[in-house]
Amino acid sequence: MYALRKLEDGPGLSLEKETPRPPIGSRDVLIQVTHAGICGTDRHIYEWDKWSQNRVKVGITTGHEFVGEVVEVGEAVTRISTGQRVSAEGHITCGYCYQCRTGNAHICETVEIIGIDRDGCFAEYIAIPEENVWPVHEKISDSVAAVFDPLGNAVHTVMTPGVSGKTVLITGVGTIGLMAVGVAKAAGASKIFAVDVDRRRLELAKHLGADLALHSIEDDWIESLQKETGGRGADVLLEMCGHPTVINQGFTALANGGQASLLGIPSGEISIDLSKQIIFKGVTIYGINGRRMFDTWYQMESLLISGKLNIDPIITHQLPMEEFQRGFELMQKGEAIKVVLNIPQTF
Amino acid sequence: MYALRKLEDGPGLSLEKETPRPPIGSRDVLIQVTHAGICGTDRHIYEWDKWSQNRVKVGITTGHEFVGEVVEVGEAVTRISTGQRVSAEGHITCGYCYQCRTGNAHICETVEIIGIDRDGCFAEYIAIPEENVWPVHEKISDSVAAVFDPLGNAVHTVMTPGVSGKTVLITGVGTIGLMAVGVAKAAGASKIFAVDVDRRRLELAKHLGADLALHSIEDDWIESLQKETGGRGADVLLEMCGHPTVINQGFTALANGGQASLLGIPSGEISIDLSKQIIFKGVTIYGINGRRMFDTWYQMESLLISGKLNIDPIITHQLPMEEFQRGFELMQKGEAIKVVLNIPQTF
Amino acid sequence: MYALRKLEDGPGLSLEKETPRPPIGSRDVLIQVTHAGICGTDRHIYEWDKWSQNRVKVGITTGHEFVGEVVEVGEAVTRISTGQRVSAEGHITCGYCYQCRTGNAHICETVEIIGIDRDGCFAEYIAIPEENVWPVHEKISDSVAAVFDPLGNAVHTVMTPGVSGKTVLITGVGTIGLMAVGVAKAAGASKIFAVDVDRRRLELAKHLGADLALHSIEDDWIESLQKETGGRGADVLLEMCGHPTVINQGFTALANGGQASLLGIPSGEISIDLSKQIIFKGVTIYGINGRRMFDTWYQMESLLISGKLNIDPIITHQLPMEEFQRGFELMQKGEAIKVVLNIPQTF
Amino acid sequence: MYALRKLEDGPGLSLEKETPRPPIGSRDVLIQVTHAGICGTDRHIYEWDKWSQNRVKVGITTGHEFVGEVVEVGEAVTRISTGQRVSAEGHITCGYCYQCRTGNAHICETVEIIGIDRDGCFAEYIAIPEENVWPVHEKISDSVAAVFDPLGNAVHTVMTPGVSGKTVLITGVGTIGLMAVGVAKAAGASKIFAVDVDRRRLELAKHLGADLALHSIEDDWIESLQKETGGRGADVLLEMCGHPTVINQGFTALANGGQASLLGIPSGEISIDLSKQIIFKGVTIYGINGRRMFDTWYQMESLLISGKLNIDPIITHQLPMEEFQRGFELMQKGEAIKVVLNIPQTF
Repeated sequence: MYALRKLEDGPGLSLEKETPRPPIGSRDVLIQVTHAGICGTDRHIYEWDKWSQNRVKVGITTGHEFVGEVVEVGEAVTRISTGQRVSAEGHITCGYCYQCRTGNAHICETVEIIGIDRDGCFAEYIAIPEENVWPVHEKISDSVAAVFDPLGNAVHTVMTPGVSGKTVLITGVGTIGLMAVGVAKAAGASKIFAVDVDRRRLELAKHLGADLALHSIEDDWIESLQKETGGRGADVLLEMCGHPTVINQGFTALANGGQASLLGIPSGEISIDLSKQIIFKGVTIYGINGRRMFDTWYQMESLLISGKLNIDPIITHQLPMEEFQRGFELMQKGEAIKVVLNIPQTF
Repeated sequence: MYALRKLEDGPGLSLEKETPRPPIGSRDVLIQVTHAGICGTDRHIYEWDKWSQNRVKVGITTGHEFVGEVVEVGEAVTRISTGQRVSAEGHITCGYCYQCRTGNAHICETVEIIGIDRDGCFAEYIAIPEENVWPVHEKISDSVAAVFDPLGNAVHTVMTPGVSGKTVLITGVGTIGLMAVGVAKAAGASKIFAVDVDRRRLELAKHLGADLALHSIEDDWIESLQKETGGRGADVLLEMCGHPTVINQGFTALANGGQASLLGIPSGEISIDLSKQIIFKGVTIYGINGRRMFDTWYQMESLLISGKLNIDPIITHQLPMEEFQRGFELMQKGEAIKVVLNIPQTF
Repeated sequence: MYALRKLEDGPGLSLEKETPRPPIGSRDVLIQVTHAGICGTDRHIYEWDKWSQNRVKVGITTGHEFVGEVVEVGEAVTRISTGQRVSAEGHITCGYCYQCRTGNAHICETVEIIGIDRDGCFAEYIAIPEENVWPVHEKISDSVAAVFDPLGNAVHTVMTPGVSGKTVLITGVGTIGLMAVGVAKAAGASKIFAVDVDRRRLELAKHLGADLALHSIEDDWIESLQKETGGRGADVLLEMCGHPTVINQGFTALANGGQASLLGIPSGEISIDLSKQIIFKGVTIYGINGRRMFDTWYQMESLLISGKLNIDPIITHQLPMEEFQRGFELMQKGEAIKVVLNIPQTF
Repeated sequence: MYALRKLEDGPGLSLEKETPRPPIGSRDVLIQVTHAGICGTDRHIYEWDKWSQNRVKVGITTGHEFVGEVVEVGEAVTRISTGQRVSAEGHITCGYCYQCRTGNAHICETVEIIGIDRDGCFAEYIAIPEENVWPVHEKISDSVAAVFDPLGNAVHTVMTPGVSGKTVLITGVGTIGLMAVGVAKAAGASKIFAVDVDRRRLELAKHLGADLALHSIEDDWIESLQKETGGRGADVLLEMCGHPTVINQGFTALANGGQASLLGIPSGEISIDLSKQIIFKGVTIYGINGRRMFDTWYQMESLLISGKLNIDPIITHQLPMEEFQRGFELMQKGEAIKVVLNIPQTF
């Protein structure tokens, strides 16, 4: 089969045409992938930055966001059938550690991620354990189902503190930040502030429901936010960029007793004034990783099929898989927000 | 009246004999102080370190932990009477901001603290708003009632994450850390790990209920903790020393999905690997300030009068007020843990 | 001054013209009432049903929902000034019991309610403790501010379980039930089911945001709800009618693990199959009383000024105070939903 | 193999000697049972009361509390090996419904219970899905491991409201109520009240940690409780008897804002004054079913191996399996509290 693979310890990806279909175990299902989203993480792997060099296993098939159709099931599979349109949770968990057995599998101690630790979805077929498979509701389009993975990150980040009736600050409106704007709106936030360095993304944030979209450098955004909240600060911070300065500004803009969900990944250690920003203010911080299995997936489905959440404007490009390089280039130039690859059924 | 005051912009405190009694407003009560605890903060003010120079108002009477007897009440006071034995919450709050009106007065935006921002309790008399006064249960001794303020810090730190049935790591067993050992034990922690640099305090931690008391430098304590928790790490971290290295070690020793209560105050910004320590592990952090009004006070009373919590071993010295300098010296030498001053009724 | 009073142990109310202005204590404010809502409770008092006979003190001025202007303040009042437009929390609490001191004053053990236990707001003037006064935001109209009391009941009922991203069943869409539809919509409910016996109210429920409005007797509403939720049942039940049959039906329609907020008051004991409806299903039930002080009030303000909640369609009639009897008759005939009385500044 | 089976639609059980070993599926394990507890439910099945007639499938092997050794595993089993000493969660869940996929498998919509809906553990061997198997910690004895099922009910009931620092009322100290006394004590309850009709059980409750053990008919227990709590009532009610009068008394004894966990199963509908007992008091009620998978199991293990919980005094009798009738008789006479049957390895 076709597969987009990381074969060398250097930049780029190879579109291989003769990769063998992945074998399936007795509890696995084989999925024919039809659409797959390109993530910022995939771009890191494509560019082969320092993080990728340390983290990603050379030799794997890349990609971790997708939708497809079940074409084969292992003999111990009982709940999934061939023909179903499905996506899947890409965190393959042990199922047996304390976290896995207490509703926190998303922070399993020995998790493996598809497209990073093991073969991913930029391929005609992918093998996935039955437990991870998520049947897609008929009201949800293929391109949206292809990006459940990052949308789930956004839902998890928003729903952990809860935003209903609260003022919400979102720092960084890249793909997931923009999704979070729509999710926070649908989830009942009373006012949404979006902060970023990219004017085009800020425009899109407003279109998706932000009440105020502010430039993180050119606007005096903390003052604007303080004014709009009567000097109280934001009730909730959703941190989505990982930039040290912005993280600290986010804490400054947070109300006493506020809550912060951290999803953005700083590239190294960062310096924080814990006393002033966290302790004296009585702030609560949540580290957010992956998606809750499967609370987040149900919440995501509910928001989408109720019609309260529409992320179509975020999916700016759909390309055939062969044009994957153009996809990465569009992302590098800042022209694309989310690119979805269409995987041909037979090459 | 007698009062221990900070009269000069330099080290030391003055025992003044002719200070006027504080006037009381219509909603205030006047309390004759009988016993007052010396806090680490008072030592900072005595030594006049950088924090004190920036924060403390010269000219005030110091001290913020005490018990005494009500001797006068303002005309609008309705619930407190002369003759009652009382302590008081030392955070004087505005009563009107968002935090004050939603059960979070401990993080009032314009709080004033007795002995720091306004006259405190190292004196024969102190004036306190009726709302802040706490009648002391008859089963509780004067010396324990004199240290409700730091004990309340410990209770607040322990009860915010909850420790019932959980493994608990306490980093730093100074006065409040030692109190936290006893509180965590009484509150149902299944296993308590105490970490410090002082062997004597570690001994006391064991006496108060720590299952393992480890030296933060000489022991390989993270490995011991990992072993004792089956490799999972601690469920709850109570951070009570503020030291940057120990804070980071505390996060390392925390389980995926663990909770951290931060009470210890670092002296400046500190460097943290948010991705590794907080985000990927799905950790929750609580900044802890003061005492919840008055949930913490009820919890404290309940733990004490049930007989489940005994902090007498922490109060190592009781001295007459005139010997306040000896009290500070005992603290500086590490001989005392908690010193309580007895305030004479008439000098 | 003018006042609508309950002077006899029998049906009706008297519009008295020579009632003395209420005196104010040192911590009270005197408010000149401009608008006051008629509550279902007032109708009970007007009709003098069994509940009223047992509960209401003969001789009091009635009414508990209002807005007005501060015209005088006691000498110990510090935060409220004359000229402010204000409403007020009508539960006058002791301020000193366990509930009052731990953020649960709404369930104070010795609460007094204005218009029931002590003089209320159907009068030119009312005296209220400063702590209970709520300054009204300039964006909120007088007629809406006059019904903060029942709107707060709705907000409290909705926000206690939380509805963000959940399917919500509201049983009974009288005034508060209709308000709850709007609140649940604004707070992010993914789907709202309204059930009632009155077709007109069901129409209004749809207008306010209900996705499905069903007749509790003529429709097979539980089946419809089950179908719409994929057989799972509703995530949240907001019980607002107090009818025994409907309460039990509500539990039947609730999902395993669902949450129920009970606000509707049954007239006596009712029969429940606890095993089947609550225990085996793992349901959580919240008894709802009054409004949280003042979390509910902030939430209400936030929902209103964000423009997400509009309750104008619920206020069907505004009448001069002299026509109070017509107001009660409109309610009795089912023609009015919420009636607001305009109180003249000088009679 | 030997098995204690329900073969007829009438009282009694049959000890069959030639029952075939249960077959195992690819995801199941076969466990050789060594010890099994007799539950009150088993007594109902033995006596063949109305509930049993409606609920239990004739033809099954009875029993649902046990410990044993794994002797065979299905080919798709990956985490359990032969030779392990194990107990198991007896609720066999679908693994695929909303509840199962969101951490609430204990209230799975299509749960099957061993010994009630399918073959149970009063037999030499039982087949159990791998997911349900729980390896037993070496510090825990066989007789304690044999009663994990009811002990887990107690832990679930106690830990749902949380008891740390709270006053706790336990109505009904049968086997699970007695276990709950020990669990509440270990989990940090500040004061425990036990209420029952059996003086011997009340004595045992005191021995296990109850501060006050009161006779539900002969003592004026609500008054005693009110006095001991300063008139406030209990913070937490753990209802463990299912008797209508006692349930209502329990609500009466609960503080405003209190929490109630209901585990006891009333035999039919009961009458409750929702307004007075639940709504006006702002009470929260939790329906408790089974054990959380597997939070409850970890909590139970932690309480036991920390040495804080000792339930040995509750296991009053151990009998060889052949004497099962004597076991039931001891229970009927009130002589036994918990009876554990020893299952011979070869008959």
